[in-house]
Amino acid sequence: MVSPWKTASVPGLQLGLGCGFWICRSYRFLFRAGAMGPHVVPRQLVWLSRWQAVCAWGASVQHRTWAGVSRIPSLLSSGGALSSSPLVCRSSSSTPPGAPEVVLTQQRYPVTRLPFSVVSSEDLAAFERILPGGVVTDPEVLEASNVDWLRTVRGCSKVLLRPRTSQEVARILRYCHEKNLAVNPQGGNTGMVGGSVPVFDEIILSTTLMNRVISFNSVSGTLVCQAGCVLEELSRYVEERGFVMPLDLGAKGSCHIGGNVATNAGGLRFLRYGSLHGTVLGLEVVLADGTVLDCLTSLRKDNTGYDLKQLFIGSEGTLGVITAVSIQCPPKPRAVNVAFLESPFYVLVETSGSRAGHDSEKLSDFLEQALSSGLVTDGTVATDQTRLKALWALRERISEALSRDGYVYKYDLSLPTERLYDLVSDLRARLGSQAKHVVGYGHLGDGNLHLNVTSEAFSPSLLADLEPYVYEWTARQRGSVSAEHGLGFKKRGVLSYSKPPEALRLMQQLKALLDPKGILNPYKTLPAQA
Amino acid sequence: MVSPWKTASVPGLQLGLGCGFWICRSYRFLFRAGAMGPHVVPRQLVWLSRWQAVCAWGASVQHRTWAGVSRIPSLLSSGGALSSSPLVCRSSSSTPPGAPEVVLTQQRYPVTRLPFSVVSSEDLAAFERILPGGVVTDPEVLEASNVDWLRTVRGCSKVLLRPRTSQEVARILRYCHEKNLAVNPQGGNTGMVGGSVPVFDEIILSTTLMNRVISFNSVSGTLVCQAGCVLEELSRYVEERGFVMPLDLGAKGSCHIGGNVATNAGGLRFLRYGSLHGTVLGLEVVLADGTVLDCLTSLRKDNTGYDLKQLFIGSEGTLGVITAVSIQCPPKPRAVNVAFLESPFYVLVETSGSRAGHDSEKLSDFLEQALSSGLVTDGTVATDQTRLKALWALRERISEALSRDGYVYKYDLSLPTERLYDLVSDLRARLGSQAKHVVGYGHLGDGNLHLNVTSEAFSPSLLADLEPYVYEWTARQRGSVSAEHGLGFKKRGVLSYSKPPEALRLMQQLKALLDPKGILNPYKTLPAQA
Repeated sequence: MVSPWKTASVPGLQLGLGCGFWICRSYRFLFRAGAMGPHVVPRQLVWLSRWQAVCAWGASVQHRTWAGVSRIPSLLSSGGALSSSPLVCRSSSSTPPGAPEVVLTQQRYPVTRLPFSVVSSEDLAAFERILPGGVVTDPEVLEASNVDWLRTVRGCSKVLLRPRTSQEVARILRYCHEKNLAVNPQGGNTGMVGGSVPVFDEIILSTTLMNRVISFNSVSGTLVCQAGCVLEELSRYVEERGFVMPLDLGAKGSCHIGGNVATNAGGLRFLRYGSLHGTVLGLEVVLADGTVLDCLTSLRKDNTGYDLKQLFIGSEGTLGVITAVSIQCPPKPRAVNVAFLESPFYVLVETSGSRAGHDSEKLSDFLEQALSSGLVTDGTVATDQTRLKALWALRERISEALSRDGYVYKYDLSLPTERLYDLVSDLRARLGSQAKHVVGYGHLGDGNLHLNVTSEAFSPSLLADLEPYVYEWTARQRGSVSAEHGLGFKKRGVLSYSKPPEALRLMQQLKALLDPKGILNPYKTLPAQA
Repeated sequence: MVSPWKTASVPGLQLGLGCGFWICRSYRFLFRAGAMGPHVVPRQLVWLSRWQAVCAWGASVQHRTWAGVSRIPSLLSSGGALSSSPLVCRSSSSTPPGAPEVVLTQQRYPVTRLPFSVVSSEDLAAFERILPGGVVTDPEVLEASNVDWLRTVRGCSKVLLRPRTSQEVARILRYCHEKNLAVNPQGGNTGMVGGSVPVFDEIILSTTLMNRVISFNSVSGTLVCQAGCVLEELSRYVEERGFVMPLDLGAKGSCHIGGNVATNAGGLRFLRYGSLHGTVLGLEVVLADGTVLDCLTSLRKDNTGYDLKQLFIGSEGTLGVITAVSIQCPPKPRAVNVAFLESPFYVLVETSGSRAGHDSEKLSDFLEQALSSGLVTDGTVATDQTRLKALWALRERISEALSRDGYVYKYDLSLPTERLYDLVSDLRARLGSQAKHVVGYGHLGDGNLHLNVTSEAFSPSLLADLEPYVYEWTARQRGSVSAEHGLGFKKRGVLSYSKPPEALRLMQQLKALLDPKGILNPYKTLPAQA
């Protein structure tokens, strides 16, 4: 604590413990209470070598009891460090006790099974020959892979395959392609949009056993690993060697790097280190027909022909199965500061640099300036791990708090920064007492708004007031109707709000080129064709 | 100058003035004198918020006369600031006086014209209707667009089109597609591999008049502009607003942002701000059939479907014509230091940060450590613009110096950092007295080696000793045979040294999908099909 700032008694949420694992996601965000103009994106912040801005719903939950920051560490008592707490990890292992059964997707949504073959005993025998011991048909084990972690969609796959090598993936896909069998590639099953589980009886192709680090270059920081490596384990691995992964997200304890790349995951380090389109150096991908496409280079620069790997980043397993990843890891920062500020939004700022003294000096100067100008009215700064995590916990539990408010309508939008909060105000006026709360928080630096609307219970009329209104509003701003979550199954119908017909047509042509039988992750990403 | 370092008398090249504009390229680089191991990539450098490492050929040109750094500013006297000197700008306006005529590509290289139509007077009339006053047929004006700036390839196009809008580009391409007329998109014509000029009589479609800034967001730093904006002008524009372009390169005075994106230009800021695949936020592209593909968003995050714009970054105009670009500009650094160090390589390091005192302190500490450990034997540091440019000039004139050594065989390779220099030593042994000099310099941080071999005159036997040896050597390291220059016309035959057959096949399929008649920049990027 080198900041001149006092440990202010800032508002915090009083959160209950013991809620289900499936409620919490630990994104790091921004949240707010009042009107937002461009001035809440102070240019002064830009000098910070890393910053994460967060603001929460404040006004909309003012009736709740707040806990001072000093009390926050007590929240950690039950689970130790938050990052390893079950509250911020996702598990896909089993149904939480007492949780209601998830309705089958094919019953809940108007979707028709495409004419793929049905897995036969002959097929199972073939898989067993390819993957001795790697073919799972036990319904209890399958259950966890058929249901998404949010417990909103559910497939009825009868078989889960667990290859260990790219060659095994290639043999499986070659077989499925020949037999017209649909395949659902699955990483950590931590997606937000139902992209990681089958819609019908697609074969689940899991990367769980493909969890080997292939190489790490401790000079350049280039990591090459199989697609099934868990992000948190990779983080630990590279941090021991003086580097960090260029991405971090709440699901890191479960998500696979292959899934991160397939969904073009955003997350907490996006603003600092940029998109995976820039940090992924190479990919190995198995195409729908079993062809292994080896673009697994570790070069920073390579201008030999089209950059094919880019096609697969964010394609959600619909164009190929990512089997290995080469990724550029930046050096581990030696100094980290977190500032939590007030007025009119709550803003969480994280800096990372190489020298604590320098960073504190810059941050203090900025905070004094922000305070004296009236831009900020109060706040606190943390540098030690415990307090730092306590401040992040304020953000990390927003989702949990929201879920206690009733039914939650969730949207993940990209908007021009200066319009980031207008939709929240607009919806409050539009929805009136229909909604319990209209909450906007997100990543200020990325222009990423997480819009949440709560009501006592699911209401079709409220939904009708929200959709397509929210999407149309976003489209008018040339925003994105899916900033970082992707489209998966649940959002594939809204693609055209953010992309013109020419783009959609080209996407469909690419899909047809790379997967002519459409066996890879069907019913996902692209809208159903008429 | 806050560094404790003396203004050392470091070796510099004595360069003649008045040589042709086409000799100089002002990349910023590394160059060397002795054997290179991983230790020459000191991890300590990584804390620098920006660094550019450069090392030059030293030993191989030790017989030359060196000038001390103190003399370097005098080099600037004739042309003012180096960046605006004709020595570091490229011009494509006319043939330099006394320069020999460039042999037609179709005469020099074994290439066969594909069965495209020949431009007729009817076609010219149609173009004139689409672009009143924008159709150029004057042979003298055409000459500059038919010949590349290196004066190595030459087409024989009879018509140059200068649209001002995307709609005009769309109408031109729709027409050409229908009439089976081949089109050569052209930006600033500053490419290194003959990609920017016609091979035969392709219609030249120039972005010269598409030079309008569409918007700039002074909070987010997002610039949206037409493809024909000159990089240096964009730099000036955003710097006046407190930002910098995320890329910078020697050809900035002539090159167009559209061409930069089409060729996935690397350049001087690559290490600091990453690849265009990460910094380009959106593109507008006209496809071969005239379809306008509008992906010109300004969003940091957008996961709605496949990231189509990535396809066109680095596709060298063979998949579509980029007509507008949305790009993320980082904040302008307030403090810049340049260090020029010796032993065993000459290394040029540039730091950029927000506070001069902090940066100098870090740099001084690093330099003292490097000096006391023996890693560095001597050096100098500059902070003021004049000295800073003088130090960069040491690098910027390497190409010019080389050209005075005779005929130059040039290679642009990506290699694993620890093998970056081995090829140079290897070639010296292999070529013996056949070569005058074997010179390796480049971007240490990017693993990008610019390999140059000189001889008194062109020698087929020397070439036979170089190729395919250099490419095979690079392929064995899983390197890239074109790090940042692309393939264009001259390197398209070597693609397979860096990409497997499956990748090549997919590239050809993508080309066939997006440009079924093959009218866009034919004979470029992809190898000729058997």
